[in-house]
Amino acid sequence: MRIAIDAMGGDFGPQPIVEGVVKALEEKDFTAYLVGDEKQIKPLIPNKLLDKVRFINSEDFIRMDESATEALKRKESTIYKSIELLRNKEVDAVVSAGHSGATMSLATLRIGRIKGIRRPAIITFMPTIKKQYAFLLDAGANVDCDAHNLYQFGLMGEVYAKVVLNKDDVKLGLLSNGEEESKGNTVTKEAFGMLKESFPNFVGNVEGGDIFKGEVDVIITDGFIGNIVLKTSEGAADVISKLIKEEIKNSGLLQKIGALLLKPVFKGLKKAIDYAEYGGAPLLGINGCVIIAHGKSNSKAIKNAIFQAIRYVENDVTNRIKESLKVH
Amino acid sequence: MRIAIDAMGGDFGPQPIVEGVVKALEEKDFTAYLVGDEKQIKPLIPNKLLDKVRFINSEDFIRMDESATEALKRKESTIYKSIELLRNKEVDAVVSAGHSGATMSLATLRIGRIKGIRRPAIITFMPTIKKQYAFLLDAGANVDCDAHNLYQFGLMGEVYAKVVLNKDDVKLGLLSNGEEESKGNTVTKEAFGMLKESFPNFVGNVEGGDIFKGEVDVIITDGFIGNIVLKTSEGAADVISKLIKEEIKNSGLLQKIGALLLKPVFKGLKKAIDYAEYGGAPLLGINGCVIIAHGKSNSKAIKNAIFQAIRYVENDVTNRIKESLKVH
Repeated sequence: MRIAIDAMGGDFGPQPIVEGVVKALEEKDFTAYLVGDEKQIKPLIPNKLLDKVRFINSEDFIRMDESATEALKRKESTIYKSIELLRNKEVDAVVSAGHSGATMSLATLRIGRIKGIRRPAIITFMPTIKKQYAFLLDAGANVDCDAHNLYQFGLMGEVYAKVVLNKDDVKLGLLSNGEEESKGNTVTKEAFGMLKESFPNFVGNVEGGDIFKGEVDVIITDGFIGNIVLKTSEGAADVISKLIKEEIKNSGLLQKIGALLLKPVFKGLKKAIDYAEYGGAPLLGINGCVIIAHGKSNSKAIKNAIFQAIRYVENDVTNRIKESLKVH
Repeated sequence: MRIAIDAMGGDFGPQPIVEGVVKALEEKDFTAYLVGDEKQIKPLIPNKLLDKVRFINSEDFIRMDESATEALKRKESTIYKSIELLRNKEVDAVVSAGHSGATMSLATLRIGRIKGIRRPAIITFMPTIKKQYAFLLDAGANVDCDAHNLYQFGLMGEVYAKVVLNKDDVKLGLLSNGEEESKGNTVTKEAFGMLKESFPNFVGNVEGGDIFKGEVDVIITDGFIGNIVLKTSEGAADVISKLIKEEIKNSGLLQKIGALLLKPVFKGLKKAIDYAEYGGAPLLGINGCVIIAHGKSNSKAIKNAIFQAIRYVENDVTNRIKESLKVH
């Protein structure tokens, strides 16, 4: 398998990205197409791995504060070149921790949507109390969605959840303001009817708190709300950890000892909610595999994003979506 | 001050509600109009407080699983009678832990909206890292909102935040999928322009994680998203606390001792994110004070909901909204 990695676009430059690629190469068999400034990147690869790496030199990359439309013009940029490799079938997948808007635009316009899919969507992993991930989509690709878009997010989410959770019986839920069928806004009420009619495994409306319960595998919402939900969850986890630290700081010696003893517990918690554990979010609905990683990805996140790409390609997710479109 | 309390509609019957009223009467001077089954309620009031309580007998109340439209027909129900007391100016405020849809419908239809306000909104308190509440509205009154609705939520939120935070310089933010002005969906982009033009203290778009940072006082969104954000935050806090408990259960003796020593810390955290600390959410935009408390309210939540009603009335929030409408 051949995977192109935009080595330059992340918030912290090429180092954590290339380190992640090295870690991935040590564990799995694939060829890495590193797109970036060869002078900077090559020294970071151990000699024994060099035969598994191709270098595609490019010094230009889209900065996080640049407009996504820039990406279409700058044909020498790392993300443009990475996407072109996929378009020309020189690689099987692209992983990018760079400008996500630019990655999405290029993937949609240069690789193209699967025939019949109106809007590609980003699918992301949510931690649950059952220690098995749930999936939420759209996590931010489309701000204004109609009912049919939500319906297709259900279709694509089902395909991907089946692959990752390795089970056939995945449950779909529609994010709403209450569980009853009567709840929802104009768009979700229409989507409810479409999903109910077509998916026997559609459980109906789910609430914000249900995301983490692990009883529903795929949570369907538009990209505006999906982004807000994602950042609200991260923000809530963050404020809780800060409040605990604050309370410990202002407490007595016994509490400080308690905190020390509990370190392994907090570490376990951190692991459970750390996005680096899954690494990236696939853009579902395009004619190929593109994994969008966090701009702040560390090497572990990049490694896991590459593993996601491998799983995506090995399980032929793109064709599975095409198959599902035939019956839905 | 006279406050009507629906003593029957909560999830746990009259006991926690009446206990909350007793706690409130012990701390503040007001007259409680308890609407409910006098036989059940009266024995719960200590004799020394009886002269501060009026009993409005009613045995009918709207169950949580009944339709909100029921509320308009059942004129003998506790919530109907409570709202009528306010409508007839026999009380200054209503506190209800009952069916929130029924409470909202009756408040809007029987008491009426403030002239010029198109949609009343529920404003709720969000904990922040700065240990000062932020406010989010609409928390669930309106599922489909246009830009003007969001604009008016900003207006009402500003008035209420000024009163509760006791400062003039409150900051307004519009919940969106990114901080840049270019982010948002069709409705929020239009609302952005209206808010920017009219409120010098509008800071622009805020993200889900910004809710808890305490740098913005009022977060504006529609009631569909508001409800989802609220339940997502509660769900995230809940899953974290369960994961910590799980980790502790599966850990060694030292960790269990650590957990014991840290009990005061977890207690402090619980207090920081416990809705019982503020107790209820006002329905802003109607011609009077109606506080919607959680169906699962304990006595502390009811006490604090009553204190909110007192603060609302003492600060003349309804008229302040009318004043603000003249300049916005």
